[in-house]
Amino acid sequence: MRMYDIILKKRRGQALSDEEIRAVVSGYTAGEIPDEQVSALLMAVCFQGMDERETASLTEAMLHSGDAADLSAIPGVKADKHSTGGVGDKTSLIVAPLVAACGVKVAKMSGRGLGHTGGTLDKLESIPGLSVNISRERFFEIVRDEGLAIIGQTGNIAPADKKLYALRDVTATVDSVPLIASSIMSKKLAAGSDVIVLDVKTGSGAFMQTLEGSIELAKAMVSIGERHGRRTAALVTDMDRPLGCAVGNALEVDEAVRTLRGEGPADLTSLSLELAANMLHLAGMDIGESRERVRRALEDGSGFWKLCRLAAAQGGDTRVLEDTSLLPRAPFTGEVRAPRSGCLTHMQTQEIGAVSALLGAGRARKEDAVDAGAGLVLRHKTGEYVREGEVIAKLYTSREETLAPASERLLGALEWGEAAPVLPPLIAARVTRGGVERY
Amino acid sequence: MRMYDIILKKRRGQALSDEEIRAVVSGYTAGEIPDEQVSALLMAVCFQGMDERETASLTEAMLHSGDAADLSAIPGVKADKHSTGGVGDKTSLIVAPLVAACGVKVAKMSGRGLGHTGGTLDKLESIPGLSVNISRERFFEIVRDEGLAIIGQTGNIAPADKKLYALRDVTATVDSVPLIASSIMSKKLAAGSDVIVLDVKTGSGAFMQTLEGSIELAKAMVSIGERHGRRTAALVTDMDRPLGCAVGNALEVDEAVRTLRGEGPADLTSLSLELAANMLHLAGMDIGESRERVRRALEDGSGFWKLCRLAAAQGGDTRVLEDTSLLPRAPFTGEVRAPRSGCLTHMQTQEIGAVSALLGAGRARKEDAVDAGAGLVLRHKTGEYVREGEVIAKLYTSREETLAPASERLLGALEWGEAAPVLPPLIAARVTRGGVERY
Repeated sequence: MRMYDIILKKRRGQALSDEEIRAVVSGYTAGEIPDEQVSALLMAVCFQGMDERETASLTEAMLHSGDAADLSAIPGVKADKHSTGGVGDKTSLIVAPLVAACGVKVAKMSGRGLGHTGGTLDKLESIPGLSVNISRERFFEIVRDEGLAIIGQTGNIAPADKKLYALRDVTATVDSVPLIASSIMSKKLAAGSDVIVLDVKTGSGAFMQTLEGSIELAKAMVSIGERHGRRTAALVTDMDRPLGCAVGNALEVDEAVRTLRGEGPADLTSLSLELAANMLHLAGMDIGESRERVRRALEDGSGFWKLCRLAAAQGGDTRVLEDTSLLPRAPFTGEVRAPRSGCLTHMQTQEIGAVSALLGAGRARKEDAVDAGAGLVLRHKTGEYVREGEVIAKLYTSREETLAPASERLLGALEWGEAAPVLPPLIAARVTRGGVERY
Repeated sequence: MRMYDIILKKRRGQALSDEEIRAVVSGYTAGEIPDEQVSALLMAVCFQGMDERETASLTEAMLHSGDAADLSAIPGVKADKHSTGGVGDKTSLIVAPLVAACGVKVAKMSGRGLGHTGGTLDKLESIPGLSVNISRERFFEIVRDEGLAIIGQTGNIAPADKKLYALRDVTATVDSVPLIASSIMSKKLAAGSDVIVLDVKTGSGAFMQTLEGSIELAKAMVSIGERHGRRTAALVTDMDRPLGCAVGNALEVDEAVRTLRGEGPADLTSLSLELAANMLHLAGMDIGESRERVRRALEDGSGFWKLCRLAAAQGGDTRVLEDTSLLPRAPFTGEVRAPRSGCLTHMQTQEIGAVSALLGAGRARKEDAVDAGAGLVLRHKTGEYVREGEVIAKLYTSREETLAPASERLLGALEWGEAAPVLPPLIAARVTRGGVERY
């Protein structure tokens, strides 16, 4: 089996055998196949695609390149969720407590990620004292006792994916359905949960900018999950607007707390409830009952209580959750005001994310630290009518000199008109092994 | 200008700017852009192509990465030819003397190449004493005095192409029209001749297996040559069958000599005449007169005389040309006989080449030496009726143990039928800046 022939085969649009895919993944991970051959193959995959069998095979090869968590020592069904990533997406902080409050366990391993804010781990760490680096034994104990814990990836999870992702990242081969699907799913399968609910973003702030592309990605991931015996579903949700109003680490914890107290933005609240309901549903509950249960967990405060229990168990100071004004807050603030009256017809979501990064909320390189207190809060969002001079967004930063360029960039990301636009639905579709259900 | 953005742009099917192409070529040659990014770009080019302007720009960037020969010290028009390569192609040994005999100078720099036999240089070196490593001054002197000389590439010709070709060779990105065209033409332009006639092969033994693909390649190369002020034309010729009967180094010299004496195979003779006539034509002569002149140079022996003058000027022993039985001949021979009676409906040309390599006529790595006396001579070719037991080919080798597998492989490359197949024309089309003329 020569790598040259494998590249040529894919270039010609033929399907690779399981054996060929395994040979590529193991050979690349072992350093026996050079970067330039693998990047040529990845580019050929971007053009020719991979069928379901090939994608499952690639996922499996990456999964088996490293360790997989065995959660069987924790009794009961374990549920996980994953978002393909979006601006203002803090649903994990809301969904995990809601699901745990309804009796289904969440043993979540999260990442930090690069981008406009940190990942779920960074957000959690804005709670003083909270640690995401805890032993496997303690992690299991917290999940058993409290029903949920969120930690950083431990062990050697899918090293093949790590190496391949780094290569894709510099060779413009990131946005390919089989490559994204196998990358995400190899890590999700390694994380060990029985139930996986995916939040696949669509629109200008997402990997996939079209609804059809996002549905295709959702189908590919659900297919992989089900082939590996995990109950898997995906919601395809709008990322043409930021989710909620807060973008930043502590700012998002604040918004998550308010949402768990029933005071969150409508979009964030309804998406969190639907994600949580689908996790309960896949864990065996009727979908109607699931929706009812998670709504109650929000209203009766049991979801919020679970977040506090999680924070306490992981060493966090829960006073900042009771009184979020105690959360870290960057010292310099600015207000972005409307330069005109009119209707906000569109916000370039990626640009809003870039503003947050500029203010210090994100990291450009793995080694960088995020500024827990930096970010922005939108006072108005797409579809709303704004008067000249009204505050559109509040900015927070530790580097005062970023306020002016951040403000300018944010204004540049806004589009204005006279009439309110027709907004796409927040949740466009649900994809399960049964098919695609449009909302 | 980030390489990532350049890859993405090409992946999306957009044309790269001249500046972007120059940045890639110079950055890669300087070792500033890594292999994995360039191979991803090359694969994207295989799918998305390059337009005429991009291809010309790539050629120019590769040309300017190294030295270019300045032939202006040699008075008169200098003509060059190039073949995209085929099994049994020894036309340079025939065409250069014919053209020189008609008064147009040929100052040819040739390569060695990898493959089923050596290149033109290796073939010439099977003439005892002949050297292809001579000084620039002596090269110019021979061309001035004799009208032709053939030497190895000197100086640092298109190092960017060398590096890119090595990368394409391991990443299955060789057969792309803009990449082949720019690679060949960067070297041909660097070689400095005013007139360039290309022999673009088509069929099972060629880069391009379809006539349309070969015409496209021919057009791309003619366009590049003309854009650089060189009078350029291409013949698109059949490589579904070996050219002539001999495949091997000294064996091909033998056949070239016989052709220059008017005793060569019909296909080799007519293609050589037409290539030579086109070189004269581009050098300013009427095409009808050109054809007449080269035919006369063949018939009156002046072409053969020029080959002898070339050999003598470069230090060769011309007795082997007067009596080709003195050429090197490998010690072990074998005969491949027809296992049945019937018509040879097809010969897998690449396989015939592989048999020649197996016998020792080719080299697998640059450092390898070729066996001057090894190879094969076909007694029957596609379209001929053969009786059971008749000799189809004679094999020559210095490694006796290769005779049996070579014989078996050659038989496996033959296809049999009852009726003679309809053969494609030897010369399918001529491509000039004026357009495509089908023969």
